[in-house]
Amino acid sequence: MRLQLFSLLLVFFSLPSFANIGDMPKEQQLAVRYIKALTSQDYAKLTSFYNRDSVFNDRTASRKYTGKRHILSFLKRAHKGVLEYDFNIEHMFNSGSLVILIGNYHYRGPGEQFGKPGRIIDLAIPGVTTLNLDMTNNRVKEHQDLMDYQTMSDQLSTQ
Amino acid sequence: MRLQLFSLLLVFFSLPSFANIGDMPKEQQLAVRYIKALTSQDYAKLTSFYNRDSVFNDRTASRKYTGKRHILSFLKRAHKGVLEYDFNIEHMFNSGSLVILIGNYHYRGPGEQFGKPGRIIDLAIPGVTTLNLDMTNNRVKEHQDLMDYQTMSDQLSTQ
Repeated sequence: MRLQLFSLLLVFFSLPSFANIGDMPKEQQLAVRYIKALTSQDYAKLTSFYNRDSVFNDRTASRKYTGKRHILSFLKRAHKGVLEYDFNIEHMFNSGSLVILIGNYHYRGPGEQFGKPGRIIDLAIPGVTTLNLDMTNNRVKEHQDLMDYQTMSDQLSTQ
Repeated sequence: MRLQLFSLLLVFFSLPSFANIGDMPKEQQLAVRYIKALTSQDYAKLTSFYNRDSVFNDRTASRKYTGKRHILSFLKRAHKGVLEYDFNIEHMFNSGSLVILIGNYHYRGPGEQFGKPGRIIDLAIPGVTTLNLDMTNNRVKEHQDLMDYQTMSDQLSTQ
């Protein structure tokens, strides 16, 4: 009984601040739709979020791509064969068209790209994603990631 | 008894990943020393972290200062009369000289600057601070803040 109550409390604390996506500021709504297209690898939907000036910047990996074509080609390469991919957003806020998402990226998939060939690996990488949005055209002007690759590497070492 | 155990668990979960500051990467150690100088308003110490090229950038407030002199004058103005000021770091990581700190800035002080003259206000503002460090000279090249001012404004409305 106590455990159930505790679990229930945990569920409440895990819920986002907004009960309904429609209650969120429109910038955060667009951000969530974009992140969903990204993590569900819906490239048909994802393509509408970028134009030739869009920038995808992983600052912690010093990796930067400009333009829809280069970004999509990178994402397709990076997420090849992935089994599960989602972003657990723990906190989100915005200042105008700048949206900040804090949480962890969960990844389950082939270990080839992580030096673990033939194995299925499971990662939860803490990260901060900052989106600079163009609200007139529903586009992502800049997607910037700050990822805790040390935690990723610690998780990989035991898999 | 159960409550004590629960509190104890909370304390464990609140502890940073490193038991000792000496076990942290040197970039994170420098970041923590800098944040301590900043939040304890130790301007004599703080001045050694900046040079004329240092940048202090609050992206969510579109406020940017360049150079030791302008940064310090802004900070002294912003923190005038403050009673308590600290950054509760919930997660910290780095990629080389880029250090990311996630947590909340706790502030207790006069409400004048927040439209609450004559009152003492208490705030805990979620935020992400990114520090670009010069490890050779122990300097902050760029301090960038992303602050959840909506949460701050919600907290202010009830005080």
